Amino acid sequence: MIHFEDAAAFARALVDLPKPDATAIEAAAARQSQLTKPAGSLGRLEEIALFMAGWQARERPRADHIRAAIFAGNHGVAARGVSAFPPAVTAQMVANFQSGGAAINALAAACGAELAIVPLDLDRPTADICEAPAMSEAECLAALNAGAVMVTTDTDLLFVGEMGIANTTPAAALCAQSFAGLAQDWIGRGTGIDDSGLSRKADAVTRALALHGPHCTSAFETLRRLGGREIAAMAGAVLAARHLRVPMLLDGFISSAAVAPLARENPAITDHCLAAHGSAEAGHARLLQALGLKPLLQLDMRLGEGSGAAVAAQIVRSALAVHANMATFAEAAVAGAL
Amino acid sequence: MIHFEDAAAFARALVDLPKPDATAIEAAAARQSQLTKPAGSLGRLEEIALFMAGWQARERPRADHIRAAIFAGNHGVAARGVSAFPPAVTAQMVANFQSGGAAINALAAACGAELAIVPLDLDRPTADICEAPAMSEAECLAALNAGAVMVTTDTDLLFVGEMGIANTTPAAALCAQSFAGLAQDWIGRGTGIDDSGLSRKADAVTRALALHGPHCTSAFETLRRLGGREIAAMAGAVLAARHLRVPMLLDGFISSAAVAPLARENPAITDHCLAAHGSAEAGHARLLQALGLKPLLQLDMRLGEGSGAAVAAQIVRSALAVHANMATFAEAAVAGAL
Repeated sequence: MIHFEDAAAFARALVDLPKPDATAIEAAAARQSQLTKPAGSLGRLEEIALFMAGWQARERPRADHIRAAIFAGNHGVAARGVSAFPPAVTAQMVANFQSGGAAINALAAACGAELAIVPLDLDRPTADICEAPAMSEAECLAALNAGAVMVTTDTDLLFVGEMGIANTTPAAALCAQSFAGLAQDWIGRGTGIDDSGLSRKADAVTRALALHGPHCTSAFETLRRLGGREIAAMAGAVLAARHLRVPMLLDGFISSAAVAPLARENPAITDHCLAAHGSAEAGHARLLQALGLKPLLQLDMRLGEGSGAAVAAQIVRSALAVHANMATFAEAAVAGAL
Repeated sequence: MIHFEDAAAFARALVDLPKPDATAIEAAAARQSQLTKPAGSLGRLEEIALFMAGWQARERPRADHIRAAIFAGNHGVAARGVSAFPPAVTAQMVANFQSGGAAINALAAACGAELAIVPLDLDRPTADICEAPAMSEAECLAALNAGAVMVTTDTDLLFVGEMGIANTTPAAALCAQSFAGLAQDWIGRGTGIDDSGLSRKADAVTRALALHGPHCTSAFETLRRLGGREIAAMAGAVLAARHLRVPMLLDGFISSAAVAPLARENPAITDHCLAAHGSAEAGHARLLQALGLKPLLQLDMRLGEGSGAAVAAQIVRSALAVHANMATFAEAAVAGAL
């Protein structure tokens, strides 16, 4: 299990990232070339199988144990009227997750994922990022480790998701800080805010960037100042998963934004990540491009909660089932290409 | 069960197409508006749930019984060197399907589909479409009914797929005949043919269109002259499913091409169909546009066998699970939008 002792340990972990197992990738590719199908005809399913083979270091990777870790946090910036929903909904939705009534419950069950719900100090929102750093060092470290602790080596595939009223605002700030651009380039309507709310959101992101920008000298500092607990938790999970070689599915805009400050420091951080889907949230396409990720799905989803990742996990399961279980040309006595 | 007595019965069935149940769609939409998520935030998953509600005439549609019907046929035009694989592979792959070693076996198992393999007179290839109609009237009718018989009302979702060495050639001819354009607009590399093969393919399609075009005065005649047994079977299954109100997933280029002559006669024929995926085969994007379908997946697959539909069936399962099982705002005591 990975635990980050302090901000410096987190920074060190981000420098030295393990690579996938080249031997397993080669073995998986050799197997694919013998399966009873025209070469390359399964498209991205074949890419997924090689990706999973590399991180699991297995010729026939598995998706028997899929874990979904859904983090929740509250945000001081919500008081600025940047969300269509009141902040109390974060805790209400966590209760809904815990009693099994939310979208992620149905979707995790559909893909066979074990679901862990992790509320993070919901009664203590982060500070308003327009006025102060979202978190203290200790708070940010605790959130990173709350994410890291969810990663265990018995997991074949991990996906992360989040719930946090107003969290598209810090997410947009993280993107702008990490990959440049104006607030307007990164904000969107989130859960469905109107034009005046969108304008308040742009203003909040602009103020936060002006206040914290010069101090965002590291991934840790950027997450601490502009992020939130559930966002830092996802970042911690991504970095921990890398060191334990657990392949991941990122969900939508917020989970991708959590990786943005890490990717700015070391672009290779996304190598063990698949982007589950392209969200309908405005900044997501730009963000995925900046992260070097091509989404598996494009279903106009914008719910969060890990919902898109749970749907994409079905694609991964299909990809691995076909890779592991197909017969070879020799086994099936099928002729190859002319 | 649907059985087409003759070509005229097939033509009549194509005129009078049932519509989805508007009451069930309204009830499903009313339910969606009460579920604990921002309105519309599940994107296409919500559209799928309404689509399935309409055809199943249920507020909470099911995907408990998914049937996959995979048809196989051989093609006289294969002798013109239009495929990268020898014709013997059709029967070899059917044996592979039957012993469980093909991609569709693994993918159908992954989505919980019951798999039916239907080889159609593999030892009697259709006539070469460059020289004669592919099938006699009796042969075409038998193939249509071999498809229709696979559709039963206890099926929640049906998908069709195919195997038939050289069948992208008749498929391209069906597209050009139904939606205009040159052979070059509709042909592609199929299982992976080289440039000279591609040129032979263009030539075969052009010859077939010149020979049969003036005689293609109905969907039946077009399928009979330019199609093939597995293609006509899929067309028969689509029309039968419509009359039994069984919603369908079309697989890739060939299964969509099977619907093209029907859609030319009655564009509403695709109303009970979802396009599973956009295939890597060159003509498929143009074909889906002509059919008014937007694919659920874009995974660069080009295998056939129903493989893309089996992956997309997972998306349908997820869409229905979330629609049926989520709590409402009232049930979960979650506040609505501000």
